[in-house]
Amino acid sequence: MQTEIIAVGTEILLGQIVNTNTTFVARRLADLGIDVHYQTVVGDNQQRLIQAIEIASKRNDLVILMGGLGPTKDDLTKQTVAHFLGKNLVEDAAAMHKIISYYAASEKKMTVNNRLQAQYISGSVPLKNETGFAVGEYYPNDNGCDFLLLPGPPSELKPMFVNIAQPLLSKRYHNEHLLFSRVLRFFGIGESLLATKIEDLIDKQTNPTIAPYAKTSEVTLRLTASAVDENEAKRILDDTEKEICNRVGEYMYGYGDNNTLVEVVVKKLLKENLSITAAESLTAGAFQATLGNVPGVSHIFPGGFVTYANSAKSSLLDIPPAIIQKNGVVSEETAKWMARRSKEKMKTDIGISFTGVAGPDSLEGNEAGTVWIGLAFKDRPVRAKLYHFARQRSLVRERSVLTGLDWIRREVAK
Amino acid sequence: MQTEIIAVGTEILLGQIVNTNTTFVARRLADLGIDVHYQTVVGDNQQRLIQAIEIASKRNDLVILMGGLGPTKDDLTKQTVAHFLGKNLVEDAAAMHKIISYYAASEKKMTVNNRLQAQYISGSVPLKNETGFAVGEYYPNDNGCDFLLLPGPPSELKPMFVNIAQPLLSKRYHNEHLLFSRVLRFFGIGESLLATKIEDLIDKQTNPTIAPYAKTSEVTLRLTASAVDENEAKRILDDTEKEICNRVGEYMYGYGDNNTLVEVVVKKLLKENLSITAAESLTAGAFQATLGNVPGVSHIFPGGFVTYANSAKSSLLDIPPAIIQKNGVVSEETAKWMARRSKEKMKTDIGISFTGVAGPDSLEGNEAGTVWIGLAFKDRPVRAKLYHFARQRSLVRERSVLTGLDWIRREVAK
Repeated sequence: MQTEIIAVGTEILLGQIVNTNTTFVARRLADLGIDVHYQTVVGDNQQRLIQAIEIASKRNDLVILMGGLGPTKDDLTKQTVAHFLGKNLVEDAAAMHKIISYYAASEKKMTVNNRLQAQYISGSVPLKNETGFAVGEYYPNDNGCDFLLLPGPPSELKPMFVNIAQPLLSKRYHNEHLLFSRVLRFFGIGESLLATKIEDLIDKQTNPTIAPYAKTSEVTLRLTASAVDENEAKRILDDTEKEICNRVGEYMYGYGDNNTLVEVVVKKLLKENLSITAAESLTAGAFQATLGNVPGVSHIFPGGFVTYANSAKSSLLDIPPAIIQKNGVVSEETAKWMARRSKEKMKTDIGISFTGVAGPDSLEGNEAGTVWIGLAFKDRPVRAKLYHFARQRSLVRERSVLTGLDWIRREVAK
Repeated sequence: MQTEIIAVGTEILLGQIVNTNTTFVARRLADLGIDVHYQTVVGDNQQRLIQAIEIASKRNDLVILMGGLGPTKDDLTKQTVAHFLGKNLVEDAAAMHKIISYYAASEKKMTVNNRLQAQYISGSVPLKNETGFAVGEYYPNDNGCDFLLLPGPPSELKPMFVNIAQPLLSKRYHNEHLLFSRVLRFFGIGESLLATKIEDLIDKQTNPTIAPYAKTSEVTLRLTASAVDENEAKRILDDTEKEICNRVGEYMYGYGDNNTLVEVVVKKLLKENLSITAAESLTAGAFQATLGNVPGVSHIFPGGFVTYANSAKSSLLDIPPAIIQKNGVVSEETAKWMARRSKEKMKTDIGISFTGVAGPDSLEGNEAGTVWIGLAFKDRPVRAKLYHFARQRSLVRERSVLTGLDWIRREVAK
């Protein structure tokens, strides 16, 4: 069961709009266990559209076309598919009635083109448009590839796909297995090292499949199991997760597509009732702003300090200027003082500090990317760690924030 | 001159990520006058990738492949294109040196796979990756279609495309008519209102074309002139810009694709030598972290306060608890006290404050999205303004930060 999604629209080709329709449909097809092998975008051009349909119909069992069902001159999709199939267009009486009623009640004039929106290819099942005028359609084809035509506006496409098309597809292709995914999230290990550590698992992957994916500062593994039901899928996924965690479990911080390190850490702090503050130099408030992303953080986060200049480190945190002068602002001592003083001043359980060189210029002989993170955690000895983050200014700061969060995650678990 | 963009990645096919790279590149190709006739997505599968390359190479002069240059097993793009062209891979010494140096300075282990990132197809021009490790490449092909290979992570793709690939393409396909773009950036006016105010200009657009584009919290207008040289383009663009500014000039804060409101504001503050601090409640450090994005900001930004809890407003800013109790934390008085006290304590020219309800819950009877911003600007009277932003937590905070920056921009201009 192979599928291709074709989005029709010159505005996508020109980069004027992002092709979110394809993402929406692809994700739901994956849930249905229908494989998408290609996605294509073609403009409002009949010749190229027909070429795209010819190529797609040869290599797929189902071709989904989105867009080009509207009333304007450049809406050509259904006419082109009808031409390809050697079929006529017929009119959907209910859809036609909806269009006529709308124009009767409005001051706008109905044009000949508006009739086109109510037409579908003879032999298709017309799909009702709950939020617009253009009917969609599903053409089951026993002599070749099936076609599904959906309107382009997301507000029309989404309800039509979810409420009408999805059940139709599910029924017609029910012999497929169901797919279940689980996302494991890692911080502090690069994609290539992670992939190397589980190379044999990736090599022998069949069920579940294992797909590593690197985001700016973290890596996720998506495990996808094919199974008859959720219980069987859970067993398959649990086994593979266990094997993965035996090797790289210390870097794994959580699950899910939309989870983040800060949500996991704040949840832990709330659970353990540990309050936190920060003194930030190079991150300039980014650590605290990240905490602030999580609703409910006010229970454990009263506020803190942005000490960008040395004068602020002394005036806000009462760090003796001599300490900074002697050790340097980018130093273990300064980081420890910042962490300890912030914790004392805010009377919290945890104080974390960030001092370093965001770049692009170096500072005190330290290259951009050199960062000390200090941590005062309850009554444990105050410590500081040195990091060398590569890459540009914004990444140095983002990386610092996440590394601080990860240190806290590990410290809470101790 | 026909081009096809092929994004390689199973995570796009599965709908796990939106294909924004294609949108980014398509938009810039449109500016260069290079026609994109197809966009394709194919998974990390060698057989289907080679089929996609075969089809694309037949119907285009240039094929752009994005993604699949990383170090893992499912990164196959350059090997597959090399196979298609009958070429070997060779090593880029500078890129290899960068990878080796990084791993030498880090605690991480370099793997064999990492070498692959420094390789390119013999006969290609390797393209330096400023923000990552995988080299891109451009293969000019006198016997067929040209190839451009770019890395998948947007933080690597974007600078490589803009700084290196774009000039290369522009040079090679110089026989196209020349297009010159100018981007005008607006804050504080919605896309539909902006479009209405310049509707007649948009309707009669031919040269330059005018393309409005809405981002999360701002709107840009891209003017694109077709001209024989830069001087002619400048005249055409200047005329249209002047007409636009006559109507909505007060909302325009700057120019350019990569410019931001904070860069414009920091530049102004540096020029006027005005120092700034902040006291942040609901934004929790996001305003100061945004200032910190701009290199050189340390000259005018010593640091400031994150006063998330009321206790912090009193302990860090010495605001009498009675003031907050009497007026409420989300109030004009509290916002003004926060702005004034932060300015006094840090001895800066400007103190700005943010207090309000990020949500999702309401506070003191104020709905999520209710925000007071306070401003103490030199010796002008301290003021505070009330805003009602959309309800989603992250947007409320982002919008607050940008609105504060825009207020300062307007205040400096007075």
